[in-house]
Amino acid sequence: MNARPDEGDPVCPRYQDAAELVGRRWSAAVIRVTLDGPARFTHIQQRVDGLSARLLTQRLRELEDAGIVERVPGPAGAVRYSLTNKGRALARVITELERWSRAWT
Amino acid sequence: MNARPDEGDPVCPRYQDAAELVGRRWSAAVIRVTLDGPARFTHIQQRVDGLSARLLTQRLRELEDAGIVERVPGPAGAVRYSLTNKGRALARVITELERWSRAWT
Repeated sequence: MNARPDEGDPVCPRYQDAAELVGRRWSAAVIRVTLDGPARFTHIQQRVDGLSARLLTQRLRELEDAGIVERVPGPAGAVRYSLTNKGRALARVITELERWSRAWT
Repeated sequence: MNARPDEGDPVCPRYQDAAELVGRRWSAAVIRVTLDGPARFTHIQQRVDGLSARLLTQRLRELEDAGIVERVPGPAGAVRYSLTNKGRALARVITELERWSRAWT
């Protein structure tokens, strides 16, 4: 609780941007899948009900641009999508969101 | 890491919905302000740069509908917006998002 509820610092725009990045439709799901390890495009799609190839392509590009996901070579040269260090650092956000959704929704 | 990266459970829709709820533009900011205690409409607006009255009204209604925010009477009968128990339970999500944004963005 704030002693003087009519005051307080402005809410940090970087925090707001981070929430929007994770919260954009399908992005949280893509991060959740890749938290389990590098994954092929089709594997990500299989684990996320309702996610079209077009939207997965778009979300992967956004997450790559944000430095959260990167392409890595998989077996037989197949591309996989892997979290960067910046992406893996989201693990606790993801864990807390999962916990909250299980407890309250 | 997943031992069998081509398998895995479907990503939980409740987790995805939770991420979208928190991540919708301005929602994370409103939750952040009310985490400091019940706040009047104008106070929330003051702490969130660029948030219009129209959009704040809309976001507060969505957060009320989701059971995250509720109206409580303040001094002199002025309405304040307060987190419910369900809303306060988001504190760790918010803290981890803030930490990540400070460290990585």
